Amino acid sequence: MLYHARQLPSAVVAIVGSGLSNKLARSWDLRAIDVATPWGDVTIHQYSRSDRPAYVLFRHGIPHRWLPNQIPYKAHAWAIRATGCGALLSTSSVGILESTLPLNRLLDVKDIVMLDNRLPDGSACTIYDEPSEQHGHLVLKDGLMSADLRSQLRDMLDREDNADNTVLKGPVTFAYVGGPRTKTVEENRIWRSLGAEVNSMTLAPEIVLANELGIPCAAIVAGHKYSTPKEHAPDSDGSLSLSLDDSGAILARLVTLFLEQGQPVPFRNLIYRFHS
Amino acid sequence: MLYHARQLPSAVVAIVGSGLSNKLARSWDLRAIDVATPWGDVTIHQYSRSDRPAYVLFRHGIPHRWLPNQIPYKAHAWAIRATGCGALLSTSSVGILESTLPLNRLLDVKDIVMLDNRLPDGSACTIYDEPSEQHGHLVLKDGLMSADLRSQLRDMLDREDNADNTVLKGPVTFAYVGGPRTKTVEENRIWRSLGAEVNSMTLAPEIVLANELGIPCAAIVAGHKYSTPKEHAPDSDGSLSLSLDDSGAILARLVTLFLEQGQPVPFRNLIYRFHS
Amino acid sequence: MLYHARQLPSAVVAIVGSGLSNKLARSWDLRAIDVATPWGDVTIHQYSRSDRPAYVLFRHGIPHRWLPNQIPYKAHAWAIRATGCGALLSTSSVGILESTLPLNRLLDVKDIVMLDNRLPDGSACTIYDEPSEQHGHLVLKDGLMSADLRSQLRDMLDREDNADNTVLKGPVTFAYVGGPRTKTVEENRIWRSLGAEVNSMTLAPEIVLANELGIPCAAIVAGHKYSTPKEHAPDSDGSLSLSLDDSGAILARLVTLFLEQGQPVPFRNLIYRFHS
Repeated sequence: MLYHARQLPSAVVAIVGSGLSNKLARSWDLRAIDVATPWGDVTIHQYSRSDRPAYVLFRHGIPHRWLPNQIPYKAHAWAIRATGCGALLSTSSVGILESTLPLNRLLDVKDIVMLDNRLPDGSACTIYDEPSEQHGHLVLKDGLMSADLRSQLRDMLDREDNADNTVLKGPVTFAYVGGPRTKTVEENRIWRSLGAEVNSMTLAPEIVLANELGIPCAAIVAGHKYSTPKEHAPDSDGSLSLSLDDSGAILARLVTLFLEQGQPVPFRNLIYRFHS
Repeated sequence: MLYHARQLPSAVVAIVGSGLSNKLARSWDLRAIDVATPWGDVTIHQYSRSDRPAYVLFRHGIPHRWLPNQIPYKAHAWAIRATGCGALLSTSSVGILESTLPLNRLLDVKDIVMLDNRLPDGSACTIYDEPSEQHGHLVLKDGLMSADLRSQLRDMLDREDNADNTVLKGPVTFAYVGGPRTKTVEENRIWRSLGAEVNSMTLAPEIVLANELGIPCAAIVAGHKYSTPKEHAPDSDGSLSLSLDDSGAILARLVTLFLEQGQPVPFRNLIYRFHS
Repeated sequence: MLYHARQLPSAVVAIVGSGLSNKLARSWDLRAIDVATPWGDVTIHQYSRSDRPAYVLFRHGIPHRWLPNQIPYKAHAWAIRATGCGALLSTSSVGILESTLPLNRLLDVKDIVMLDNRLPDGSACTIYDEPSEQHGHLVLKDGLMSADLRSQLRDMLDREDNADNTVLKGPVTFAYVGGPRTKTVEENRIWRSLGAEVNSMTLAPEIVLANELGIPCAAIVAGHKYSTPKEHAPDSDGSLSLSLDDSGAILARLVTLFLEQGQPVPFRNLIYRFHS
């Protein structure tokens, strides 16, 4: 087990979602590690073909176990810190609200909208649920997305051949919408009218919690469907699986690159603590 | 008790709210039935003057017991499924946000806005709160409102004499706003600006949960007050009771029609399940 | 301990936030009193230089103990009622969303936006979480802000010398945004687009709960930073403390005035109770 919760940030971690979990688990050389956290053990996977410590966290478990509302976000964030994470890349398949954005392309998330800042159980999205010496306000000087890490990722992708699956589109504003159901037509219309361009039922909670733990974050997503009034939901169980697979494939190359080339960056937000 | 949770959907169920509960209970020939659910027993009432199984669920209990934030929505949805429900009509007294819509008329709900998708206790509005073999995403191909059931209700009302209480107005977009307080002027202004035309503190949770259980739903509501900046709240305790009674009366005729003539329709949404 | 929960409303209470807690505690002549509530004991402080009973509640505890998401709002509201409170003034340091509003001036809150009406733990913001004889709907005839109390405060400040710290600006619409993190740029843009002019992570829950307990409320706030896209978060830990101190100072004079001159006003909202 990993217990060194406060080691120097030398590792990189990627979170992968429902689109690419099983496929990646088979193609990558991963070693499962159990990490003890105050909210139970978490299995995180070490990626072996990297010079620095590099880890993958399967957001829904592997095999797929948790619906979006069942994900143990606090335990996940804690386990990520325990690796000594200095750069977190979160990925997700998303619904696209803005019809001019392409499906199945990498979309750089510039900002997050999570209006109620709550975990799936309804409680405030924070590690600091109880009074303690360490607790404080996360003050977003840099934003939830690290400017340094976003630059690093853009440069990393620019160095690759200019294939469709390594061109970074956007940037886009991501809205967090609680699961586990898809949104109604009117709900999607409202999120678009508020400025959101993509949405999904995950990603934002882990980004907020990781920032509270001092971890610089970035998020790159891929649209697996349009969530616009004119478009329709996938026709059947089968076609939804297919569209998730497509968005998973486009994200797989990115995650591999990041695990092999990603580097820690400085944390530029602030945990503000009151002192008597 | 009813235990046949998976029988063929042959029944119809109507949910009634605070406007018409006591009045209906006295005028209808109802037989109370207790249904065991994972969240406690639920009393549902069988309506005897119908050829098919037809049931009424009193949302707030009878006599009135639960404020909107106290309603056991999961138990209710489970009990409705246990009846073998193939068509659920949910009714509610609502506040009207759009001043051109009439009070005390039947309003056909075309879509629901429930931005945070949470139950009153804050947890995600889902039957699938814990990992299980059956859990999945509710994918809204048809929407929360069944197109088939909405058509059936419209036809049913069209066949009646063209009296005020059988003319279906709208369609309207319904916003779910948590209780148990009325909204502030600014909150109502915001909901209107987001496209909502009516709102209430109930209805949406039971519609989401019923859809997760494979039950086709429709909702018809009646406005008992205007919730617009220019209008005022009812003057006193007494006038609020009166306005609720009026909206209850307009809904009573509809519910009777549905219990006697309503028929199951196919469920056209999808529960998407991940498989390893 | 105070147990007389139902005495005539003869007291005034002021709630103070993180900006001025320690400073006030030292400068005022306060006597700590423990009040038993169904949610644990609450310490409230009696202000001695007033003819009528006057109390201060330190929202975050004193010394500062609770982050916004840790505040025991229900216990606080209950303790305030136990004083026999007939006028509650709630104050807060806020972020300013509308760039034409000044920093460090008294801003009169005319209305509150708290779209999900939930406490930090996710549950409905209500004293009436369980069925009881007393429970009911808070019907906002007067609004969450008492018109009488707002007038009283305006008159009180008008009688003072026309210094910067006794001029009441606004009125403004206040949005409640859950903590304990600051908002993203996009979130603040959305709140502004919805009509909110200031926001903070506190204040609204205590106002809603106090109204449920029949207590007339007003809120006056002061901006300690701009939360607009063009402005930046405070540069460092130190500058945030400084900006909170400034907004605290401007509120301190107001609170003193209110404790010495404030008077109970009639409660003009309604608790609507259903009767079988």
